[in-house]
Amino acid sequence: MLLVGHGSKLPYNKELIETTAEFIAEKTDEYIVKPGFMSINAPTVEEQLDAFRTEDINMLVVVPLFLARGVHIDQDIPGILGLPEGGRKGTFRMNGKTVPLVYANPIGSDPLLAELMLKNASDAIAELDP
Amino acid sequence: MLLVGHGSKLPYNKELIETTAEFIAEKTDEYIVKPGFMSINAPTVEEQLDAFRTEDINMLVVVPLFLARGVHIDQDIPGILGLPEGGRKGTFRMNGKTVPLVYANPIGSDPLLAELMLKNASDAIAELDP
Repeated sequence: MLLVGHGSKLPYNKELIETTAEFIAEKTDEYIVKPGFMSINAPTVEEQLDAFRTEDINMLVVVPLFLARGVHIDQDIPGILGLPEGGRKGTFRMNGKTVPLVYANPIGSDPLLAELMLKNASDAIAELDP
Repeated sequence: MLLVGHGSKLPYNKELIETTAEFIAEKTDEYIVKPGFMSINAPTVEEQLDAFRTEDINMLVVVPLFLARGVHIDQDIPGILGLPEGGRKGTFRMNGKTVPLVYANPIGSDPLLAELMLKNASDAIAELDP
């Protein structure tokens, strides 16, 4: 799994992406997880694609850690992956073999996101009156 | 609960914030939920603060639907809320009374976010071979 982050001059986006990659790796052995960034931070998406070329994988899943669709999601990332705009499936050329590539959705509207917002609200209220 | 979104020229961020506000309202009766935007989209954060002034609430919780801290989270939103930078608690002047105001964290590193990424990955793989 290539977890794609936006990147930022401030440290918080990079921290978020890297920590989330670690959480995913802790939760499951199904994926080798590598975080890669669209801008400013390293490693870049391209560098991580290169790093995956020598891993023992039978599929590449690219998951963007973005809230919603936008230019990065609809154009920039598909461009790097060699997918046509709107395309979700392609191939990934490794050293010596080719594996399927799938491009996942960004976060989008999801009841889990609503739950996360409720949790953040409760945490803030709990701090008010500890 | 004032759910604060970034706003965008594209429709996706606005849709995300509004749908999440609806999901939260469906999940609980504890909050009156209003979405407000920092830029481009309406209603603005300021307009929704005004709208809350006539609601029957005993506290205002401001929850930013942002992935990570940044200039909006650390400076712009606290500025609108009348909080000092780094401040999490204040007061909200309503029509006729003053209630506590709390400012929640953005999404940040959370195991729930890792779960959401795993779900998006599985959904994409399931589409590959339906």
